[in-house]
Amino acid sequence: MKILLIGASGTLGQAVHKHFVEAGHELVTAGRNSGQQRVDLTQSASIAAMFEAVGRIDAIVSTAGNVHFGSLTEMTPEQFNLGLQDKLLGQVNLALLGQRYLNDGGSISLISGVLADEPIRYGASATAVNAAIEGFVKAAAIELPRGIRINAISPTLLTESVPTYGPYFAGFEPVPAARAALAYQRSVEGAQTGRVFKVL
Amino acid sequence: MKILLIGASGTLGQAVHKHFVEAGHELVTAGRNSGQQRVDLTQSASIAAMFEAVGRIDAIVSTAGNVHFGSLTEMTPEQFNLGLQDKLLGQVNLALLGQRYLNDGGSISLISGVLADEPIRYGASATAVNAAIEGFVKAAAIELPRGIRINAISPTLLTESVPTYGPYFAGFEPVPAARAALAYQRSVEGAQTGRVFKVL
Ligand SMILES: NC(=O)c1ccc[n+]([C@@H]2O[C@H](COP(=O)([O-])OP(=O)(O)OC[C@H]3O[C@@H](n4cnc5c(N)ncnc54)[C@H](OP(=O)(O)O)[C@@H]3O)[C@@H](O)[C@H]2O)c1
Ligand SMILES: NC(=O)c1ccc[n+]([C@@H]2O[C@H](COP(=O)([O-])OP(=O)(O)OC[C@H]3O[C@@H](n4cnc5c(N)ncnc54)[C@H](OP(=O)(O)O)[C@@H]3O)[C@@H](O)[C@H]2O)c1
Repeated sequence: MKILLIGASGTLGQAVHKHFVEAGHELVTAGRNSGQQRVDLTQSASIAAMFEAVGRIDAIVSTAGNVHFGSLTEMTPEQFNLGLQDKLLGQVNLALLGQRYLNDGGSISLISGVLADEPIRYGASATAVNAAIEGFVKAAAIELPRGIRINAISPTLLTESVPTYGPYFAGFEPVPAARAALAYQRSVEGAQTGRVFKVL
Repeated sequence: MKILLIGASGTLGQAVHKHFVEAGHELVTAGRNSGQQRVDLTQSASIAAMFEAVGRIDAIVSTAGNVHFGSLTEMTPEQFNLGLQDKLLGQVNLALLGQRYLNDGGSISLISGVLADEPIRYGASATAVNAAIEGFVKAAAIELPRGIRINAISPTLLTESVPTYGPYFAGFEPVPAARAALAYQRSVEGAQTGRVFKVL
């Protein structure tokens, strides 16, 4: 399959890239400052330009998206809106704008995360954004035409990210990014739609 | 209690207003084009000005918020962003900006809706927005200080709205707005936090 991977250079993206290459797929990599295609998820014109450049594909796979972490009592409207415009609307736009570039039976796999279900201190924006992404895929699944499927992948803290994010996730059991890559493979090669694949 | 009700003139808001007045509370009404306070949820400066004008309160109650309904295959980024800026960020900002005007032990009650759990055609934006609101209250509940609580009310289609929205909700069993008003009372007068009160 020809797969467009947005966020390929990241901690999660590298593992997904490696796994899909080993599974024999053709990958087109994209990122904000790296990859074969440069794209800024916060700019819908930039997303549209990426799809126009890449052309027809079998799968859209996202491992990208930023949210603001910080104390709820200090969080500003602008900080909360960052995650809405980046991880949430950015990925929704991969679906809204990307659907017409997908071949029949193609798929869209978006990233959410464990905070959708398990709030932590400083994570109110992440919980809201991840829950919205999971809601979006459940709803979009019933409307997508031509057998196009959409799922979310929701990993807990990645082992590779423990040095960076570990202190926020006290007592959470991390999983290797390679396990999350398997969930992406289920989403892309499987037949399910409107699902949240949790990797815990 | 002194309660600020945003969206007081609406189908749901009128029922909540009546119920809280009958329960003996002091109500301050707010809305975009009606009410004692004029506020536009899409403008954080407008929300901040409302709280400054109203002063200290015991409860923030919202029955307001718009989202775009429309086919997923035609939905534009701008249309999807409408719900993010209005019903989602608008209500999040009631919490972010309003928390410091609440007395100790005060509460915040936001509106989500059945589409969070039960997607319908044309409802992908509503499902995402409602799921985000429910995620937000679960996460915000663990960080709010001074015994401040936050909940979401999630009614199914209201009986009073069947003439307007009925065709979108084929086979859904509607509930009277007065039943949703009871759920708001549980949220405001009860002791729970981080809860979604479903009215089905
Ligand atoms: N790491 C974890 O433990 C973990 C666990 C659960 C969920 N997640 C979620 O997984 C996603 C990726 O996490 P990560 O730790 O792998 O992140 P990361 O290492 O920071 O990598 C992010 C990737 O996304 C790209 N990117 C970032 N912002 C972008 C934008 N606005 N437009 C286009 N591309 C953008 C980056 O491109 P450039 O490098 O070219 O800038 C990079 O390839 C995030 O949404 C995160 O919330 C992570
Ligand atoms: N009706 C249903 O069946 C149903 C079921 C489940 C959930 N809900 C949710 O409940 C909420 C209210 O629904 P409804 O049917 O009662 O709506 P409605 O009759 O249209 O009333 C909306 C109320 O909110 C105010 N408002 C609208 N946009 C605003 C903004 N940007 N800033 C400030 N105030 C604003 C309006 O003020 P003005 O009149 O002054 O403009 C009005 O008081 C919505 O979020 C809806 O999704 C409704």
